[in-house]
Amino acid sequence: MKLVSYLYDDRPGWGAVVQGNRIVELDRRLAGFDSVASLLACGDAALRQARSLAEHESPSLDLSAVQLLPPVPMPRKIFCIGVNYAHRNAEYKDGSDLPKYPSIFMRVPDSFVGHGQALVQPHESQQLDYEGEIGLVIGRGGRRISKAQALAHIGGLTCVNEGTIRDWVHHAKFNVTQGKNFHASGAVGPWLVTADEFPEGFSNVRVRTRVNGELRQDDTTANLMFDFAYLIHYLSTFTALEPGDLIVTGTPIGAGIRFDPPRFLRPGDVVEVEVDGVGTLRNMVKAEA
Amino acid sequence: MKLVSYLYDDRPGWGAVVQGNRIVELDRRLAGFDSVASLLACGDAALRQARSLAEHESPSLDLSAVQLLPPVPMPRKIFCIGVNYAHRNAEYKDGSDLPKYPSIFMRVPDSFVGHGQALVQPHESQQLDYEGEIGLVIGRGGRRISKAQALAHIGGLTCVNEGTIRDWVHHAKFNVTQGKNFHASGAVGPWLVTADEFPEGFSNVRVRTRVNGELRQDDTTANLMFDFAYLIHYLSTFTALEPGDLIVTGTPIGAGIRFDPPRFLRPGDVVEVEVDGVGTLRNMVKAEA
Repeated sequence: MKLVSYLYDDRPGWGAVVQGNRIVELDRRLAGFDSVASLLACGDAALRQARSLAEHESPSLDLSAVQLLPPVPMPRKIFCIGVNYAHRNAEYKDGSDLPKYPSIFMRVPDSFVGHGQALVQPHESQQLDYEGEIGLVIGRGGRRISKAQALAHIGGLTCVNEGTIRDWVHHAKFNVTQGKNFHASGAVGPWLVTADEFPEGFSNVRVRTRVNGELRQDDTTANLMFDFAYLIHYLSTFTALEPGDLIVTGTPIGAGIRFDPPRFLRPGDVVEVEVDGVGTLRNMVKAEA
Repeated sequence: MKLVSYLYDDRPGWGAVVQGNRIVELDRRLAGFDSVASLLACGDAALRQARSLAEHESPSLDLSAVQLLPPVPMPRKIFCIGVNYAHRNAEYKDGSDLPKYPSIFMRVPDSFVGHGQALVQPHESQQLDYEGEIGLVIGRGGRRISKAQALAHIGGLTCVNEGTIRDWVHHAKFNVTQGKNFHASGAVGPWLVTADEFPEGFSNVRVRTRVNGELRQDDTTANLMFDFAYLIHYLSTFTALEPGDLIVTGTPIGAGIRFDPPRFLRPGDVVEVEVDGVGTLRNMVKAEA
């Protein structure tokens, strides 16, 4: 099931995408749930009910009539994983061994826009860069989740452009916070696809990034140093994961900064992040007004 | 005015502390505000109304009858500033020049408890450490706030113990996220004191930390490399600050890790963070059950 959150006539709504481009408005048909996150929080029975409605009810909205938001618009916690594809550790060329633990930073929800909304190149920088990633949305929450149980806590997957202001990443010796949290510098969407639609599991999910149609990043989770189960286990060691929380799992080689000279995004560029089994997140870059 | 948030009979409430240890339940007397953050969001007129109630109504609760929460229990954004007192840059002994920009990391709300609640030493580490800091709570929100206007956006000050799990801070080469976000490893409170009670401004506010009565940290904002006005200006360059957001402004020299050998916290230790003009935040350490 494809779950979306959106604004329709400036009012927030959420539902399921069916027939490619139609929406069944689950917010009007499922009593007791006020968001995608609250549906995920209620587990399998609620998801079965939602799926049944999505299959049998007539869709009442067109996807083109709404403004998509990130599928969970306000996650309580957004954790992003630094260098996680094995090739990227080599890309850094600092001769370092493979890391023992993941590098983690956080983003605020309003650093992301939804599918189709503009990525904003801010006044302060010419170095807006893309990072195509797989976003893992927590379904069932928990603390100290074992690796063996971890995959059962995945609510679904989505596409993330973990957009970055490169020069601001280096403002401080440690911690990349400011370069990773510019308003509307990244995107999440277009929807989340629930975990049941990945019967093969998550060990070989492909992610690709294109800029103006040109392939820039292409890798699969088979090359992750820290796989989804480990990330859920590790993060939940120190904090409780909650339904709707977003784990942005790392980007393959090929971000704009890695070219010589770097190829940063320019106003008018179109960035697409495609995750197999999910779909394609597409955003155009605009200069801040 | 001292604003507190709390649980009373397991129900959330908020109010003003008067006569040292009594609470005027503002949540029952001020229609249209559901939290300290929502009061701050409504600006001076709302604060005047609250202040008038706090002065003239009879307090109906005893401070000892409630379980204090952080004064804003769920800030949208919590930004913490790394090395910010000039002496601390020297303490690192790496010969580095003074930094040009602040180092910033984020914390999740449930990494903090309220005044009087236990700081939890987790199963995974023996290196729980204190960091006494001044917490700056945003009153009026905004983006790209000028340094000249910045102080007018302060809602009030509070005390923060920015508790840290030292060995987990070093799990990754960059980014201190995991060592700064263990559940219940820090504390905020006991209340926030509104900005009007700092007629001298914020350029010489003293913060002290004591462990079992022994003074460990003692400095004032006169020694900050990045003062409050600059922090508000800088953070709001990349993200919108919102009422209730918390900026944890940095810790003086003297954290436990800086002793030789290090003096980490042990179960039963009592940590006090005192900020002049605010009060004293006190928490006991317990080992995780």
